[in-house]
Amino acid sequence: MGKQAIGVVGLAVMGRNLALNIESRGHAVSVFNRTREKTDELIAEFPDRKLVPAFTMEEFVASLEKPRRILLMVKAGAPTDATIAALQPLLEKGDILIDGGNTHFTDTIRRNQELAKAGLHFIGTGVSGGEEGALKGPSIMPGGQRDAYDLVAPILTEIAAKAPDDGEPCVAYMGPDGAGHFVKMVHNGIEYGDMQLIAESYAVLKQVLGLSNEELGGVYTEWNKGELDSYLMEITSKIFSKKDDETGKDLVDIILDRAAQKGTGKWTSQNALDLGVPLPLITESVFARVLSSLKDQRVAASKVLEGPAAKPFSGDRNAFIEAVRRALYFSKVISYAQGFAQLRAASEEYKWNLDYGTIAKIFRAGCIIRARFLQKITDAYTKDKALANLLLDPYFRDIAAHYQGALRDVVIAAVSAGVPVPTFASAIAYFDGYRSARLPANLVQAQRDFFGAHTFERVDKPGSFHANWA
Amino acid sequence: MGKQAIGVVGLAVMGRNLALNIESRGHAVSVFNRTREKTDELIAEFPDRKLVPAFTMEEFVASLEKPRRILLMVKAGAPTDATIAALQPLLEKGDILIDGGNTHFTDTIRRNQELAKAGLHFIGTGVSGGEEGALKGPSIMPGGQRDAYDLVAPILTEIAAKAPDDGEPCVAYMGPDGAGHFVKMVHNGIEYGDMQLIAESYAVLKQVLGLSNEELGGVYTEWNKGELDSYLMEITSKIFSKKDDETGKDLVDIILDRAAQKGTGKWTSQNALDLGVPLPLITESVFARVLSSLKDQRVAASKVLEGPAAKPFSGDRNAFIEAVRRALYFSKVISYAQGFAQLRAASEEYKWNLDYGTIAKIFRAGCIIRARFLQKITDAYTKDKALANLLLDPYFRDIAAHYQGALRDVVIAAVSAGVPVPTFASAIAYFDGYRSARLPANLVQAQRDFFGAHTFERVDKPGSFHANWA
Repeated sequence: MGKQAIGVVGLAVMGRNLALNIESRGHAVSVFNRTREKTDELIAEFPDRKLVPAFTMEEFVASLEKPRRILLMVKAGAPTDATIAALQPLLEKGDILIDGGNTHFTDTIRRNQELAKAGLHFIGTGVSGGEEGALKGPSIMPGGQRDAYDLVAPILTEIAAKAPDDGEPCVAYMGPDGAGHFVKMVHNGIEYGDMQLIAESYAVLKQVLGLSNEELGGVYTEWNKGELDSYLMEITSKIFSKKDDETGKDLVDIILDRAAQKGTGKWTSQNALDLGVPLPLITESVFARVLSSLKDQRVAASKVLEGPAAKPFSGDRNAFIEAVRRALYFSKVISYAQGFAQLRAASEEYKWNLDYGTIAKIFRAGCIIRARFLQKITDAYTKDKALANLLLDPYFRDIAAHYQGALRDVVIAAVSAGVPVPTFASAIAYFDGYRSARLPANLVQAQRDFFGAHTFERVDKPGSFHANWA
Repeated sequence: MGKQAIGVVGLAVMGRNLALNIESRGHAVSVFNRTREKTDELIAEFPDRKLVPAFTMEEFVASLEKPRRILLMVKAGAPTDATIAALQPLLEKGDILIDGGNTHFTDTIRRNQELAKAGLHFIGTGVSGGEEGALKGPSIMPGGQRDAYDLVAPILTEIAAKAPDDGEPCVAYMGPDGAGHFVKMVHNGIEYGDMQLIAESYAVLKQVLGLSNEELGGVYTEWNKGELDSYLMEITSKIFSKKDDETGKDLVDIILDRAAQKGTGKWTSQNALDLGVPLPLITESVFARVLSSLKDQRVAASKVLEGPAAKPFSGDRNAFIEAVRRALYFSKVISYAQGFAQLRAASEEYKWNLDYGTIAKIFRAGCIIRARFLQKITDAYTKDKALANLLLDPYFRDIAAHYQGALRDVVIAAVSAGVPVPTFASAIAYFDGYRSARLPANLVQAQRDFFGAHTFERVDKPGSFHANWA
C-alpha cells in the first residue's frame, strides 16, 4: 500500500476542509482525529475521496512518506502541545510539523526552537478565509525553517486562493519561527479595524443623515465598485437587504449590538504596546467591541447621560455621503499604515526579514481583508522596500492630501451630533501626530523630570539633562 | 544589643529614602545592600541616624525582631526573585516580606502563593511619590495577607503621606496577593492619561490661540485654583516660567518632544485588554508617548504631509480658554471613570474586594496624581459602593451635562486646525459610546456571522442564532 505525501491531525471543520481541499488537488491524505467519531463521519460523508483514515498515531505516522508532512489543525494552546508531545516519539529527523491553528506567535517561536533541537522542522502558518476558504482556497502565511517550507510549498501553493488580477497563489514564505502566525495576527487586527471603521460609517450615515437600510445597502454597493472594493464592503452591502425569516424585518435591526471577539485583535494591540509601535486605531476598534458588550450598562447610561440635541442635517446629502466614503478610505489607509509599521517593528525585533509587499499580495484573495487597495501597498513597497510608513508613499500621500478634509468634516459632524466615532477620531489624531515635527511631549518630559528626575533630551545638543525645578 | 522592628534590603534611592523616613518616625532600621558600598555610603552620610548596617544576609536577618519585617526595595523581576531566594532559607514561619518595588501584579500573586506554602507572608505594595515622597511621605498601596498587613500597618501608617484636608494617612489595605501592585499600576496608567491630557490642552492653547509660555503659565496657575487643583497642574504652571540655565530661553522650548516611559502605562493597557474593559484614553496616552518617540520619522513626515491651512482664531479667546479647561476636566473625569471601571473588573476577576472609595482617598496625597477632585470619587463610592461607572454618579453626571459641549468644541477646533488630540477625541468617543443604548456593533456581528458563522444574538429573544446569508 502506498504512503501519503501529507496527513492532517484534527478533523474539526477547518481540518476536514483543508484535508478535502488538499485531496481535491489530487493528493491522497492521511487523516487522524483524537476521537474516532470525527474520522468515521468524514469517511462516511466522502466515501469516494482519497482520504486515508488512521485510528492510532502510530498508524497515522506510518502511513506517511518521509520526510513526513503533518498538518496540525487542533485547538491552540495546551491541546497543540499535547498533540506534538504524542507525535514526537514517532517522528524522525527531518519530519515537518505544520501548525495551522490560531496560535500566538510566541508559542510558535518556542515550539520551533524546542523541536529544532530534536531535528524536527516546525512551521507555524496562518490560514485565513474561514471554513469556506479552507475548503476552496485560503490565504496562507507560513513561517518556520525555509528548507522545510520548500518541502511543503508545492501543496500549499495548490490549495491557496488565487488572486483575481493575476492568478498568483496567496501563499508565501513569511520568515523564521513565529513570522507566519505573527502576520496572521496582524491580519486579524487589521480586520478588527476595518470592521469598526465600516460600523462607524454606518452609524454616521444612519444617525446624521437618517439613511434607511435600503439606502445604506445602495451606498455600500456603490462604494464596493470603487477604491473601497473589498470582501467586507461586499458583504456589508448584502447585509442591509437581508430579511429576518421570523419577523420579516430587516435582519440588521434584529441583531443585538454586542460584538464578540476571539482575542486576536487584543493580541495585536498588546504586541504593539510591547514593541512600542503606535497602533491606536486597531486598539480603539478592540475597545469598541468591548464597550459594545456592556449593553446593560449602556442602556442604563443612555437614560441619564444626555448628548447634544438632535438637529436635522442641513447640508448637501450626497456631498456628505462622499465625505464619509473618503473618511472611510483614508482611515483605512491610516489603519494599514499602523499595521504595516507594526510588521516592520516586529521584523526588526524578531529578525524575520519580512517582505511587506509580498504580505499585502497574499492578502489579495482568500482572506477576510481581501481588497483591491492591497495592490497599492504592494506597489508602495515594490518602489521602496525601506519605506518607514505607508503614509509617506506618493499614492497614499495623495490620498492624505485630498481626503483629510473629508475625514475632519466627518469627525466634526459626528462629535457635534454625539455619534461615537472612536476609530475615525483616532485616525485623524494619528495622522496629525505623525506629521507633527513638534508634539507637546516636551511638556510630558518636563513633568517627568520635575517629579521623578527622569531627565530630558534637548533640542540643541545630544545628551541627557536634569533641571533643578524647585 | 536590641533588635530592629524592620529592615530594608536594597539601598538605591527609593530604599534609602524609605529607610530614612522610617527612622525619622523613631524606629531603628536594619539596612542591607547586595554590594557593601551603598551601605557604607548611607551610614557615612547619616552617622547620627539609627540605621543599623548589616553586611551579610545572615547578619541582617538575625538583627530583626520576630516576626521579621523586611522591606525589599530591589529591582523588579529576576533581582527580586533572587533576593527572595537568598532570604528564604534564613526566615521562619510568620515572617513578612514586603516588596515595595515596581512589580507586575502577576509576579506578586505568584510570589505570595509560593511563599505562603512555606508559611511566609508576602506583601506587595505600591509606593508612589518618587524620591521625595519616599523620604517625606508616599502614598502606599499594600496587598497581601490581611493579618500580615496588620503587623506592618503601624509603621506604614507613620511613614505615609497625610491628606491635606483631614490629615488621614495615605495608606490602606488594598486586598489579597497582587491587589496593591495592581492599584499602583492603574495609578500609573491614570498618571499617563492625566499628563497627555494636559499636554493636549497645552498644544491647543499654543497652536489654536497662540498663547505664549508666560500666558500658559498664567492659565495653568489659575486652573490650579479650581476644580483642576492638583500636583500635576501645579508643576505644569511652574514649568512654563522655568528658564534654561545655558541659553536663558524658556526651558520648555529647549526640551526635546520625545516622551519616555517605564512600562507601567503599557501594563495597564495590556491588562485592560485581557480583562475586556474599555480603557481607550489611557491607551491613547501610551501610544502618544510612543508616537512622540518617533521624532525623526515625524520630522520627515512633516515635510511631505500637509495639514489644514493656518487660520487666525476669530472667536472669544477667554471663552475658548474656559472651554479648554472644561474639556480637560471632563476628559479627566472620563479617564478616571475608565480606570476605576478597570479596578472594578479586576476586583471581580481576581476576587480582591477592592474598596474604590478608599483607593481614591489614599491618592489624595503623596502620589503624582494627587488632586482635589479625588474626594469627589470617594464621595461617589461612599454614596453607592456598587456604582458601575463614575459617569453615573450625580456629581459627574452634572459635569458631563455642563462640560460636554466644551469638550466637543475643543475637539472640533483641534481637528479643524490639524492639532492632534488623541485623548480628548477618545474621551468624547467613549462618552458617546457609553451613553449609546444602541451602537453599530450589530453590523459587526452580522459581518462575523456572514463570513465565519460566529452567530449573533437577537434584540427580541435570548439565544444564539445563525443566518443563511448566501
